Amino acid sequence: MKLYFSPLACSLASRIACYEAGAEASFIEIDPPTKKTLDGLDYRSVSALGLVPALVTDAGDTILENAAILQHIAELYPARRLIPLEPLARTRMRQWLSFIGTELHKALYVPLLDRKAPDAVKAYALSKAESRLGWVAQNLEGRDYLLGEFSVADAYLFAVLNWSSVTPVDLSPWPVIKAYQARLHARPEVARAFAHERELYSRELARHRVVAPPSAAPLP
Amino acid sequence: MKLYFSPLACSLASRIACYEAGAEASFIEIDPPTKKTLDGLDYRSVSALGLVPALVTDAGDTILENAAILQHIAELYPARRLIPLEPLARTRMRQWLSFIGTELHKALYVPLLDRKAPDAVKAYALSKAESRLGWVAQNLEGRDYLLGEFSVADAYLFAVLNWSSVTPVDLSPWPVIKAYQARLHARPEVARAFAHERELYSRELARHRVVAPPSAAPLP
Repeated sequence: MKLYFSPLACSLASRIACYEAGAEASFIEIDPPTKKTLDGLDYRSVSALGLVPALVTDAGDTILENAAILQHIAELYPARRLIPLEPLARTRMRQWLSFIGTELHKALYVPLLDRKAPDAVKAYALSKAESRLGWVAQNLEGRDYLLGEFSVADAYLFAVLNWSSVTPVDLSPWPVIKAYQARLHARPEVARAFAHERELYSRELARHRVVAPPSAAPLP
Repeated sequence: MKLYFSPLACSLASRIACYEAGAEASFIEIDPPTKKTLDGLDYRSVSALGLVPALVTDAGDTILENAAILQHIAELYPARRLIPLEPLARTRMRQWLSFIGTELHKALYVPLLDRKAPDAVKAYALSKAESRLGWVAQNLEGRDYLLGEFSVADAYLFAVLNWSSVTPVDLSPWPVIKAYQARLHARPEVARAFAHERELYSRELARHRVVAPPSAAPLP
């Protein structure tokens, strides 16, 4: 299968899922401002809105939306247990994928990461941070991962929380979230995915002659 | 099971799923401004952020997030075929649940429905309408429903598109979406759910002594 991604965008979650699953996948980088592959092909022919990730299966079907792609990868490799088998736990995983996608990714971080978003838009988004991150923190108390064991929901949350470092989102009120980030980063496949995309992200910045911020920054 | 809802909020989708499934469910109304049941009980003890819907199973487990609740209901009543059986089609359904939840519900409609959102926030949200709704329209061409057959993804999209009438979202450039709304509304269980919640919504407005807009209006 082929995964279309942009460095440190939310597609990082799908790369982590591929690595954790031991999936055979090729990764095709999309340049965010131009929506083209590095070879100059138009990504909008794969994803009409230009959003990453997109996954093209070996049968040639295109799947969009991180939540759907993450579950697809996890189900292809059931032995890796990236999704729970028990129905209630599986429902909880879907609950988290939805919460991360709606409340964190789209409502909180996307406007903060958008250079063109007016200040009022950023302030409105940021006003949601305390309640949403407080809810995440509450659910991480006493747990290593969102569902106890690692799942693709953690891959998604890791990719999204990573954007805090380049936005005004301050995670310091929630040591349990900081500890969770460190725990994820200590997983070899997560660290490998992150290090690789951080390097690609530096190259992306260099291509566009933008000065890199102190830590890696993403586009959602 | 018990479904916590607010009239014409996105929880309408879960009510439609219950009706279409023939599920035995009780429905508990939450007053949006106070986050209390009509008996005065604090809904935040069920859903910490006060968001509807929440579903409490007969075993006493609380499930949050529409996308998770819709799939849970559909899977409880497999004979009603509210989710596809074939894996790729099921993945497509998840893709739609995610797209509707992130790009339409949270990014487009929530800021437009929020009376406290500044004009700049509403304008930013509205700037996403054409591309997102254009994508929906493109995918409805030649299809009665998002996946061909009716699924819970249609229940969700119906509930969300309904908010257009009380926001500046103009669906008239996409006759295929207008026809889709009419097709959904012609389903007896969808019409029954909508009529019931419209009546409850009128009562909600009366409780808060707000003048009702010409057509029914929701809170997300």
